[in-house]
Amino acid sequence: MKFCSQCGSSALELRVPTGDTLPRCVCSNCGTIHYQNPKVVVGCLPVWDEQVLLCKRAIEPRHGLWTLPAGFLENGETIFAGAARETAEEAHARVEVGPLYTMISLPHINQVYVMFRARLLDLEFGPGPESLEVRLFDENDVPWSEIAFRTITRTLRNYFLDRKLGVFPTHVSALERRAPRPDLSGAA
Amino acid sequence: MKFCSQCGSSALELRVPTGDTLPRCVCSNCGTIHYQNPKVVVGCLPVWDEQVLLCKRAIEPRHGLWTLPAGFLENGETIFAGAARETAEEAHARVEVGPLYTMISLPHINQVYVMFRARLLDLEFGPGPESLEVRLFDENDVPWSEIAFRTITRTLRNYFLDRKLGVFPTHVSALERRAPRPDLSGAA
Repeated sequence: MKFCSQCGSSALELRVPTGDTLPRCVCSNCGTIHYQNPKVVVGCLPVWDEQVLLCKRAIEPRHGLWTLPAGFLENGETIFAGAARETAEEAHARVEVGPLYTMISLPHINQVYVMFRARLLDLEFGPGPESLEVRLFDENDVPWSEIAFRTITRTLRNYFLDRKLGVFPTHVSALERRAPRPDLSGAA
Repeated sequence: MKFCSQCGSSALELRVPTGDTLPRCVCSNCGTIHYQNPKVVVGCLPVWDEQVLLCKRAIEPRHGLWTLPAGFLENGETIFAGAARETAEEAHARVEVGPLYTMISLPHINQVYVMFRARLLDLEFGPGPESLEVRLFDENDVPWSEIAFRTITRTLRNYFLDRKLGVFPTHVSALERRAPRPDLSGAA
């Protein structure tokens, strides 16, 4: 943010407003406090018999890698509706949205993932504009090394494990910033 | 939003960007798309023996009514940390944050409530700056007609019912805009 969205002034400063506890972007001209908050990413784990539906990304980040249909929750939308909409947009798939399955905080990028289990209603799916390919995968065929996001890997791993156990609790967790790769340049 | 926060121009228009499906606030000068998304409200249902902890609001909206400690999730924060922080700020209370309990979409005000069950760790609580009073309530003493928000009423109702049943599933739901009060001005 370089200009105040209320008055157009560039006199923005980072300071703790009276009665607040955190530094905010405050306009020195008109006094508006510009709060910034995490975004919710909603999506589905669509299942057909023993298979799960994955989408190959046609957009950055992670172009060409596989993911579950998911995206930013929109204003005016419930989390159920958002999960169904993203599945329709990215996989042209119709689902019955089921129970909440994983909820994963990503504090370093200000996101919260909210993934639902879902029942695929028919096989008339296919790639939307943000997908290169949409496919059903058996557990043994999931391209684990080509999954786009750690949230998706975690959701899928949970699912296949829970399926063996026969219970699907809601999993609430967090992922921190990925540890930097070790510098091996000086290694023998 | 009256001015572009990137370039300061007032040439903002509402239109559907290429490749998008919804109207966005777009700057005609620099092309920036200003997305707006729902906010997450995180909080706790703190329990001590058979009692629940409520806070009487010292701020608008709903000044003077009772609520559970809850507030907007901050950037850089997990949902667990946010729930604990709000409880510390509003009730000066220390809790062990427990399982996710209710998740309630409020699409008409672009919010998603995320409430955790929590175990109050000691009785050294008291009102923070946003509370007039903080008290433990037995089920029979809960001031149902003076609860600030429907999300909180629903969370408390669920809790007392689930406690009778002995199981506390995660409840995911939505609340739509409150129906207008019937116009009884012409009634006999």
